[in-house]
Amino acid sequence: MADLEMKLLGLWCSPFSRRVELALCLKGISYDYIEEDIQNKSPELLKYNPVHKKVPVLVRDGKPIAESLVILEYIDDMWDDKPAILPQEPYERAMARFWARFIDEKCLPSIWKAFWGPKKEQDEAEKEACENLKALENELKGKKFFGGSSIGYLDIVANFIAYWLDAIQKTAGKTILTKESFPLLSQWKVDFVACKVVKENLPPWERLVAYYQIRIEAAKASNDDGKIQIY
Amino acid sequence: MADLEMKLLGLWCSPFSRRVELALCLKGISYDYIEEDIQNKSPELLKYNPVHKKVPVLVRDGKPIAESLVILEYIDDMWDDKPAILPQEPYERAMARFWARFIDEKCLPSIWKAFWGPKKEQDEAEKEACENLKALENELKGKKFFGGSSIGYLDIVANFIAYWLDAIQKTAGKTILTKESFPLLSQWKVDFVACKVVKENLPPWERLVAYYQIRIEAAKASNDDGKIQIY
Repeated sequence: MADLEMKLLGLWCSPFSRRVELALCLKGISYDYIEEDIQNKSPELLKYNPVHKKVPVLVRDGKPIAESLVILEYIDDMWDDKPAILPQEPYERAMARFWARFIDEKCLPSIWKAFWGPKKEQDEAEKEACENLKALENELKGKKFFGGSSIGYLDIVANFIAYWLDAIQKTAGKTILTKESFPLLSQWKVDFVACKVVKENLPPWERLVAYYQIRIEAAKASNDDGKIQIY
Repeated sequence: MADLEMKLLGLWCSPFSRRVELALCLKGISYDYIEEDIQNKSPELLKYNPVHKKVPVLVRDGKPIAESLVILEYIDDMWDDKPAILPQEPYERAMARFWARFIDEKCLPSIWKAFWGPKKEQDEAEKEACENLKALENELKGKKFFGGSSIGYLDIVANFIAYWLDAIQKTAGKTILTKESFPLLSQWKVDFVACKVVKENLPPWERLVAYYQIRIEAAKASNDDGKIQIY
């Protein structure tokens, strides 16, 4: 299968794109990486993901797959002879999928809004974000990683909380995830980022902070509150 | 495994709840059904789905699973000795998952908004809903069902479009899915609803139309435009 063309359309600062890179690395699958310019989307991106027009898109032998959670499942299904990403036991698989959706549909939007939503909605969003993080904290009880003793699907999906959130907190000068309030998540962050394969698949710290800083300034200048997107 | 307690917390008029019932029937799995009162949620629903507080919830041996798409995957993983719901080939699986998310995240919200969103946003939403339905129509080219020659995961997920949409169109006196504009989807609707197992798992037509009628009247009376939810 190694002879089939494999390419990933991604964005260096996108946690969704980095999820896929991490999964491919964990499986030991080689691929060509194509950096997209999200302000000026390539004809290839529009062709391969006409519905959402977003990264990441994995293209294997000319056939595209979009949406990071869908791609992660595909990678696990396709290379099932390599170490599994999702848990094998059906109930555990269901729980991993449930919490992955929770992260994308509840947790990330609430965090985003707490930092960069309309000013008058930020306090309420912060409360909600903390409740959501508390629910994730509970999932770590008695475990080093969400996946157990080693990283798995849910750890990959939670990558934003382990790394990007710190960059946003630093840029915004506001902290919602503290060691005191979230001891398990805080320890998980350290353990996750310390994994060699994770470390090699994160955007450079200084560049990420600078990137958010520029976007905040641009949003302020255009008075475009609440329009900063997670890519 | 048949001796383990299995119950489904559902709502008769919910397409999401009916997805799970249909999947359980397709697999031939018996279960106890518990009808929820969504205006007055049971302590059991709040206990088993504290995050979303929504039906459907499948509870097996005391362990709950929420979110219809997660439950469908669980049913297919758990009873993998019974006819499969998801395609077996990895790329086809990925496509089924991609379009299932598309239905829930793009298609249903746009249809809903076209009918029951704020008045001034309805035209734009209808345009969007038609584009989304056109994308689904394309997926049916050369196939009787989304699943191929027999119904599968994506057919189950699209149940709303096959049946509930007609009830809404009748209630609202407005039609967006016509035979002329969507010949393949229109034929698929007929074929899907004609399946014995599907027919047995749909809410009674007259009751569903009456139910939507009451909700529309209540929304009008309270001037609560755009607050009607899909359960």
